[in-house]
Amino acid sequence: MKIKKIDHIAIVVEDIDDALGFWRDALGLTLSHVEDVPDQQSIVAFLPTGESEVELVKPTSDDSGVARFLNKRGPGIHHICFEVEDIEEALASLRADGVRLINETPQIGTGGKKIAFIHPESTHGVLVEMYELTGQEPEVRLARARRLADRALASGQAAASSALEFLRGLGGNGR
Amino acid sequence: MKIKKIDHIAIVVEDIDDALGFWRDALGLTLSHVEDVPDQQSIVAFLPTGESEVELVKPTSDDSGVARFLNKRGPGIHHICFEVEDIEEALASLRADGVRLINETPQIGTGGKKIAFIHPESTHGVLVEMYELTGQEPEVRLARARRLADRALASGQAAASSALEFLRGLGGNGR
Repeated sequence: MKIKKIDHIAIVVEDIDDALGFWRDALGLTLSHVEDVPDQQSIVAFLPTGESEVELVKPTSDDSGVARFLNKRGPGIHHICFEVEDIEEALASLRADGVRLINETPQIGTGGKKIAFIHPESTHGVLVEMYELTGQEPEVRLARARRLADRALASGQAAASSALEFLRGLGGNGR
Repeated sequence: MKIKKIDHIAIVVEDIDDALGFWRDALGLTLSHVEDVPDQQSIVAFLPTGESEVELVKPTSDDSGVARFLNKRGPGIHHICFEVEDIEEALASLRADGVRLINETPQIGTGGKKIAFIHPESTHGVLVEMYELTGQEPEVRLARARRLADRALASGQAAASSALEFLRGLGGNGR
């Protein structure tokens, strides 16, 4: 099997904005974008550095793996992801070596992204993700950014409505 | 401050050879070398991948930071190290931002290597190392490799002596 590079380090955090206060503002990494990743029940902030990325991951539900990690251990490094040339071949090779896999076959996300996790029992305590780059990712990322913008808009509209209600309560100035 | 790339991910392990069974043999990373690092009371195996490295760290004493980590949590990711352009400037910038540092000034290892750690309290749970590349490192690495070879030789000589003693005990065949 052929590992190409460290794709990313994922860090579970309680709050993306708080965490950006260190990782972007103090450490000086650049925030490329924030994505809503519903199939991983997370919001993820991407901070590229060299050929890799630091990813800040905030759970958006209580029963995902990252949410359980956060509840149990607090914020910290969750996993390391390597880009592999051929994920099916990598999984077959690991299986042949008796490595315990979390995903026996690649998980296919929207747009064809292929990922699979190796169990920490076989890696000496590290949750390891493998990732095969696919050609459809720009479209997938755009769709995710749109969902996030929609959510922010909906949240902004709710805040505007609340403010309007409040002003109405003060005596009709909001009309 | 200017971060250049992820320099390495350090993974604390109980046994280097065991860990290489996964990280080199199963995952397919290349082992570039193993170093004795007495000022960190560790033996370190370096496995480059892309522009970064995976480092497997085995404590050689019981009272170092990595030894305490291993005893408390078991094997796993210990820290992430970023290469910075200017470590003094980085530390000054972090201090100005109110970031808690473990090393207020760069630690100078043999040969002038400069490193400093940031406290996990300020990073959302991640032990972060910064590292400034210096020109003297090839000599330092060579000296470390020599120490490791000397140690292996001494250990081999001790084993040969024991075998000789054993053979003598069997009836003088070792003479």
